[in-house]
Amino acid sequence: MTDRASPRITVDRILHPASVAVFGASDDRSKWAGRIMYYLALHGYAGEVIPINPRRQIVQGKTCYARIADAPHVDVAIIAIPAPLVPATLRECADAGVGCCLIISSGFAEVGPEGAALQREISELSRRTGMRLVGPNCLGLINVLNGMALTSARVLEVERLHRGRIGFVTQSGAIMLSIFNRAHDVGIGFSHLVSVGNQADLDLADFFEHMIDDPATAVICLHVEGLRDGRRFLDLIRRARRAGKPVIALKTGRSELGEHAARSHTASLAGAYPVFEAACRDAGVVLVDDPDVMVLVANMLARFGAPTEGGIALLSPSGGINGIVADRLADANVPLAVLRPETRQSLCEVMLPTHLDNPVDLGARRQELGETNAVAARAVELVAADPGVNAIVIALTTSPNYEATSKALGAAAVASGKPCFTIITPGSVADGVRAVLREIGCPYGDRIDDGVRMLAAYTRYVPTSRVARAPDAKPGRASLLDLRTGYLTEPDAKALLARYGIPVTRERVVRARDEAVAAAEAIGFPVALKAVTDKVVHKSDAGLVELALADPDALGRAWDKIRRRLAILDPPADTLLVQEMVSGGLELILGAKRDPGFGPVVMIGSGGILVELLRDVQLALAPIDPAEAEALLRGVKAWPLLEGYRGRGRLDIPAVASALSRLSRLAVDLGSRLGEIDVNPLIVRTDGHGVVAADARAVIAPETQDQDL
Amino acid sequence: MTDRASPRITVDRILHPASVAVFGASDDRSKWAGRIMYYLALHGYAGEVIPINPRRQIVQGKTCYARIADAPHVDVAIIAIPAPLVPATLRECADAGVGCCLIISSGFAEVGPEGAALQREISELSRRTGMRLVGPNCLGLINVLNGMALTSARVLEVERLHRGRIGFVTQSGAIMLSIFNRAHDVGIGFSHLVSVGNQADLDLADFFEHMIDDPATAVICLHVEGLRDGRRFLDLIRRARRAGKPVIALKTGRSELGEHAARSHTASLAGAYPVFEAACRDAGVVLVDDPDVMVLVANMLARFGAPTEGGIALLSPSGGINGIVADRLADANVPLAVLRPETRQSLCEVMLPTHLDNPVDLGARRQELGETNAVAARAVELVAADPGVNAIVIALTTSPNYEATSKALGAAAVASGKPCFTIITPGSVADGVRAVLREIGCPYGDRIDDGVRMLAAYTRYVPTSRVARAPDAKPGRASLLDLRTGYLTEPDAKALLARYGIPVTRERVVRARDEAVAAAEAIGFPVALKAVTDKVVHKSDAGLVELALADPDALGRAWDKIRRRLAILDPPADTLLVQEMVSGGLELILGAKRDPGFGPVVMIGSGGILVELLRDVQLALAPIDPAEAEALLRGVKAWPLLEGYRGRGRLDIPAVASALSRLSRLAVDLGSRLGEIDVNPLIVRTDGHGVVAADARAVIAPETQDQDL
Repeated sequence: MTDRASPRITVDRILHPASVAVFGASDDRSKWAGRIMYYLALHGYAGEVIPINPRRQIVQGKTCYARIADAPHVDVAIIAIPAPLVPATLRECADAGVGCCLIISSGFAEVGPEGAALQREISELSRRTGMRLVGPNCLGLINVLNGMALTSARVLEVERLHRGRIGFVTQSGAIMLSIFNRAHDVGIGFSHLVSVGNQADLDLADFFEHMIDDPATAVICLHVEGLRDGRRFLDLIRRARRAGKPVIALKTGRSELGEHAARSHTASLAGAYPVFEAACRDAGVVLVDDPDVMVLVANMLARFGAPTEGGIALLSPSGGINGIVADRLADANVPLAVLRPETRQSLCEVMLPTHLDNPVDLGARRQELGETNAVAARAVELVAADPGVNAIVIALTTSPNYEATSKALGAAAVASGKPCFTIITPGSVADGVRAVLREIGCPYGDRIDDGVRMLAAYTRYVPTSRVARAPDAKPGRASLLDLRTGYLTEPDAKALLARYGIPVTRERVVRARDEAVAAAEAIGFPVALKAVTDKVVHKSDAGLVELALADPDALGRAWDKIRRRLAILDPPADTLLVQEMVSGGLELILGAKRDPGFGPVVMIGSGGILVELLRDVQLALAPIDPAEAEALLRGVKAWPLLEGYRGRGRLDIPAVASALSRLSRLAVDLGSRLGEIDVNPLIVRTDGHGVVAADARAVIAPETQDQDL
Repeated sequence: MTDRASPRITVDRILHPASVAVFGASDDRSKWAGRIMYYLALHGYAGEVIPINPRRQIVQGKTCYARIADAPHVDVAIIAIPAPLVPATLRECADAGVGCCLIISSGFAEVGPEGAALQREISELSRRTGMRLVGPNCLGLINVLNGMALTSARVLEVERLHRGRIGFVTQSGAIMLSIFNRAHDVGIGFSHLVSVGNQADLDLADFFEHMIDDPATAVICLHVEGLRDGRRFLDLIRRARRAGKPVIALKTGRSELGEHAARSHTASLAGAYPVFEAACRDAGVVLVDDPDVMVLVANMLARFGAPTEGGIALLSPSGGINGIVADRLADANVPLAVLRPETRQSLCEVMLPTHLDNPVDLGARRQELGETNAVAARAVELVAADPGVNAIVIALTTSPNYEATSKALGAAAVASGKPCFTIITPGSVADGVRAVLREIGCPYGDRIDDGVRMLAAYTRYVPTSRVARAPDAKPGRASLLDLRTGYLTEPDAKALLARYGIPVTRERVVRARDEAVAAAEAIGFPVALKAVTDKVVHKSDAGLVELALADPDALGRAWDKIRRRLAILDPPADTLLVQEMVSGGLELILGAKRDPGFGPVVMIGSGGILVELLRDVQLALAPIDPAEAEALLRGVKAWPLLEGYRGRGRLDIPAVASALSRLSRLAVDLGSRLGEIDVNPLIVRTDGHGVVAADARAVIAPETQDQDL
């Protein structure tokens, strides 16, 4: 039995209700509910609109009901009464068989313990009755397709809603409205926009899921503050991927302070960003850092689909602007296309022979052709035809016939069929140009920065990813159930690694000095001698490690020294570890941990001093195969050292990839028992000579029922 | 004798001419010159306007002259005729005693060799006659203070020009116009805006210099493509610094591609950005990467002066927006203020006790006070009073009484007297809000990104710098004149370092095997043995270095080996170097070179493998004193290692600083003979144990007359 009743109404029905009830309905458009009713009429919502107000008979020409119980059947009711009155009204709605209540009211979990109690009360009511809730503390939703704007904001005061194929879900009502307004201004349309607020019942994932299945939505934008259920989110981004729908996500709480702001706002914990980032990267989600860029990227994906391989072609009548944009693109790692010889040849038709490079300075047209727009447009056409050009960017500065010039250039870009974008550098003087570009359907941005950041995100979108192969992340080996819970000492941790075929140092646990000497002779001098203790984490710093012991005498002296230190630091500890000396090679750090939201993750980074200097760590959700491990490894800053830096030999990259892949399998197999595993350092030898885990530790969590995360 | 005639007219007079002649004058405002005349009248230029046109008697109510020779005295003439006709017209102007010609015409150096010849011709004419030129290939200039807009662009089609204290100079006319228009839209005014184009005579530095002395200009914005004379630019940024005028610079050509774009546009070479950056940092110049941000920062500096120590206070009615902005500020290293206990205490007056943190979620006001604007404004006032808050940022989302709310919040911020800025998150729905903010004088931006990048640049401006002390950069030691020109071998380079007190390894140049053994015994085994050659740069890779030779036998074998290799690689070389072994310690790289624009610079960075992995190098203009050297060193990524990383001992930072400062003095003293010097590695030992240059090389340039750069 689940603790959530089956929904009486689907998300699809909530977005396409047959009837909408408006509580507190009014003829006065300066009132909240007056505006809601007005916007429903204005934008042509064809369902039934049912005003609820005990003091009215007719509102905006519609029969008004005193109580919801008197009204005809209601799919969705919208409510913005003071928080303490909400539960009673919801009970009336549930009794009346309302499918879903959309609660604008604030004063719930976001304002402290009292509000949180109120929110628990309505969540419970929803679970018990099956009546769905959106909100509280949201600003409603907008279904552009059926003209149903369930929000009272003035941004709806427009002649018509632009239809589009972009779906947008956010926790923040303010962001929904800002985004809607900005997008409207530049002619970008949506299918649906939803603000989910405190998510007392329906949450971001529920609407996200609907949009994956919704044929009217081609691109999905998510603004995520906290994630309630990382696993479900992960499943959904993978489903979206398999469905071929690009997802663009803006995550708040990337920084500690942003995280704090998210917490105080949504009363939900923001997850750890790097894991979120790794999950998104694996599933091909485009991550952005602000809502303006999110919408611009979504529009490019909806309009032009995925970008192809290649580089940007940048054209402007101003070489000065070209220089600035080219610098910014370089900063953002967005490559400019190198024009092919044939393109340069054909460009000679319209450009001075000294000016055949990308970025293209349209000011350097052949003067004998006249400064006509047709000549400039021809340059755009020729450059766009270069197969190495994957997008055309035009930076429009003021010019005498600004609208006509912009129209000619924009139309040539649009006609090429390639993704195109226009950066408008001046302000209001270009308002006519903006209108022209909207008319011809050429996307634009009002900042150099809009263009650069949009391109950085858009060109990062790749239409294939490892998700297609849907790695199996179910725990395997029952044999791991013998592991003891808690901190594993170095030899135990290494034994666990060795079970998965990860090479570890030859070593032996010993209890007495002569046993140590015998072990060293078996392993071969020189050796290292280490204390075995779960009390001291940094054993070297504590004087519990002696290295490069060349003979039995040195070993004996080291034995005495470590025993003395150990007697102080961990008196019950009675074993030491004799270990082969490994030296040289590159040091990496490998690790695994269980993220509370996303399950097992592995990490790899530079070891030794580099790890803390550079914070040079790459993460991936486990499991990963060796090829994926190698791809991850390429992101580590020490990669050039692995490839063979300045004439030094190539190191054993396949062995590193294998070890990381094996560790990821171990992490999955440990299931909920995975606390964390660190291999530091993993020594990487030259090609063909493998790797060896020189030190390791692990924490094993207690068994829980939750075996499959 | 200088090759430039004394100017007959100053830059000040060019900006404040008594008379302006317009070539090709017309009554038709659709024509270029018709608009120029119209704008001069529209914006109230009070000087004489003199139309020149052989086919007219009267233009726009003014007596028109057929030829410049017939006209009364002209301070500034503006010309936009085809390039090939320009020289003849300029000759007429010079003959008529015109003070300065402003040449809009393009088709000069920016379009290739033919245009370059034309440009040389007019430069020569200017030098010969003393008639000053602005342009060609510019879009004119605007002096807001006397209403003299010498540009034909439609951006002048405004009721009035906003007066301000920001001066702006750029090579690019398009950028001047775009910036003017954007700034006008948000109510930001200028003193002067100048586009200098190809700089055939007057250049960016000339107008920059004028603005430093101009009492009407408080903040100077420069968009720099190529720099003609780095030394003059350096002198000017230092002069501006001493005059207390903030300078904000946008440099094109930071990236290779931007550099390319700049070159093709301005026909002048872009300098190497890192040296430019170091020079600007030293002189307190704020570097930005796009023109929109430049103007926003300039406005903050003109309006509020330099920022004080502290952090940003961020307030918004939307916690969602707060989260996004807080993340972006963290990415940009702009600190948020931590509110003092007293501020939190006083905030309780209006905010819920759970919501007393920065960023402040204005949605969490105490509900019993009502959602009035006065309550929200009180929160702004209380937060602004916190002494740790150095700027107030308000992110305005849509709200029912949007203008009134925005006015209340903005006015409270302005009234606090602290720097303040408003981020407007929606689009056109906020147009009324924009008008309100302009009215109350609260700066605003239309993107989250505008605010974040403005704050990152503004808060980086520090009102003091090392320029105040004006280091003496004149070469000193005549004794360096004995140096031979060309590549210095390791022992010669080290001898040069040693003259300046930079510690080098104990070593001796030897010619025979027994001499080597004697040297090694004097130095003390173990030693290193290296070939002395100027033919092989990477001696280790070539097998010309043997390390850790423990005794005479080992030394003897190494001798034979190196002699054999040397006989192949550099047969004439007949000396080897016996050197003390230095090991352990941290490796840094030190260097000096002569920048063609800015003179001697020094660099310091991580050595060993880190140098190429991280490209971790910090630059400064020489000379620097030890304190400045230490400040530079803090910017090196390896700094934590020097400070004593993870319990390891602190290294000898004063010795590094001393060595770098000494190297900078050597670089200055070498004057034009400085080619480059590399010390790699400099071995840094633990505190008190000094540093030692383990390897070094140098290139000494031939003597030239130019001794003082």
